[in-house]
Amino acid sequence: MNERQRARRPGGRSARVGAQVHQAVTDLISERGYGNFTVGEVATRAGVADSSVYRRWGSLENLLSDVALTRLNAQSPMPDTGSVAGDLRTYAAQVAREITGPDGLAVVRLAVALSADGQGPQARDGLLAERTRQMQSMLDRAAERGEQPPDVLDVLDHILAPMYIRVLFGMELTPDYVDGLVDRLL
Amino acid sequence: MNERQRARRPGGRSARVGAQVHQAVTDLISERGYGNFTVGEVATRAGVADSSVYRRWGSLENLLSDVALTRLNAQSPMPDTGSVAGDLRTYAAQVAREITGPDGLAVVRLAVALSADGQGPQARDGLLAERTRQMQSMLDRAAERGEQPPDVLDVLDHILAPMYIRVLFGMELTPDYVDGLVDRLL
Repeated sequence: MNERQRARRPGGRSARVGAQVHQAVTDLISERGYGNFTVGEVATRAGVADSSVYRRWGSLENLLSDVALTRLNAQSPMPDTGSVAGDLRTYAAQVAREITGPDGLAVVRLAVALSADGQGPQARDGLLAERTRQMQSMLDRAAERGEQPPDVLDVLDHILAPMYIRVLFGMELTPDYVDGLVDRLL
Repeated sequence: MNERQRARRPGGRSARVGAQVHQAVTDLISERGYGNFTVGEVATRAGVADSSVYRRWGSLENLLSDVALTRLNAQSPMPDTGSVAGDLRTYAAQVAREITGPDGLAVVRLAVALSADGQGPQARDGLLAERTRQMQSMLDRAAERGEQPPDVLDVLDHILAPMYIRVLFGMELTPDYVDGLVDRLL
C-alpha cells in the first residue's frame, strides 16, 4: 500500500490527523485571531509532528484555505424541499446555525480573512465559486419546476451578507429574523 | 506648554506622527494582512521610535482600533440632501468610494478583524455604535420632514452588508449596483 492509498483509507490515521489538525486551526483562530499562530503551534496543539503538517499542506496558507473550504462546504449541503421558499428558508437556517455555532465565528473570520488576503485569491475564488455553484443548482431546480427563483447574487446580497455581517458584529440571529430575510427577498 | 497641550496643537509634531503611524498601519495591513506585524515594524515604517507608539497607544490592539475608528468615522460625514432617497444614495456612494479606494480593503479588513476579535469588543461596539448613531440622525431628519425612512438596521442589512461582502470577495461595486441597493430598500 503506497502513501496515496493510505491517505485515502477512510477512518485511518491520515483522516484522524486531518481532523486533529483542522480542529487545532479552528481553536487557534478562536483564541488568537487569524494569522496569529504558526504551523509549529498548530502541530503541537494537534499532537502531530510539524513535518506531517508541512508534508500534507505545504504551508500555513494552504492549510487555512483547506480548513475554510472543508468547513464551509461540508456543513452546507443544499436542501431540496420541493419549493424555492422552503429551500431558501432551510438553507438560511443552516447557515445561521453554522455561523452562530461553537466554531462558527472562527470559520466566518477565516473565510473573510482568506477572501481578502493577497496570498489567498485562489482560496477566495474557491469559496465563492463553490457556494455560488451550490446555490445556483438549488435555484435551477426551482426554475425547472416552473417557479421564479431569485438571482443567486440577490441571495448573496440580501440573505448571506446580512447574516455574516451581523455575526461579525456580535448581533443575534433569531429564527424570525432569518425567515424575514428570505420572505423579503421572495 | 504641557504634553497634553502639545498633543492637541493642530498641524504640530504630534499630528504628523499620528498621520505617519496610521498610514504605516494601513500599508502593513494591505501588504501582510491583519495581525501579521508588530509595533516595532509599524514604528520603523512610520519613521518614529517604538517608544512613541507605545506611549501614545499603549498596545498594537489599541492602535489598530484607533486607525479603524478614525478612518471609518472621518471618511463618512453623513449627507443632508433634503430627501431620504438623496441622503441614502449619497451615503451609499460615499461608502462605496471609501471601501473600493486605495486603502479601502485594508480598512474593511481591519473593521472586520476588530469586530470579531476577542481582544477588541470595545472597538467593535465603538465602530457599530458610531455608524449606527450617524445613520440614525440622518433617518431622524427624514422622519421630521414627514418622510417614511427605513429602519437603521435595514440600511445595515441591505445596503452596507452587501457592499462590504462584495468588496471582501473581490467583486466590483458599480454606481448602478449601489443605487439599486438603495432603490430596492426604499
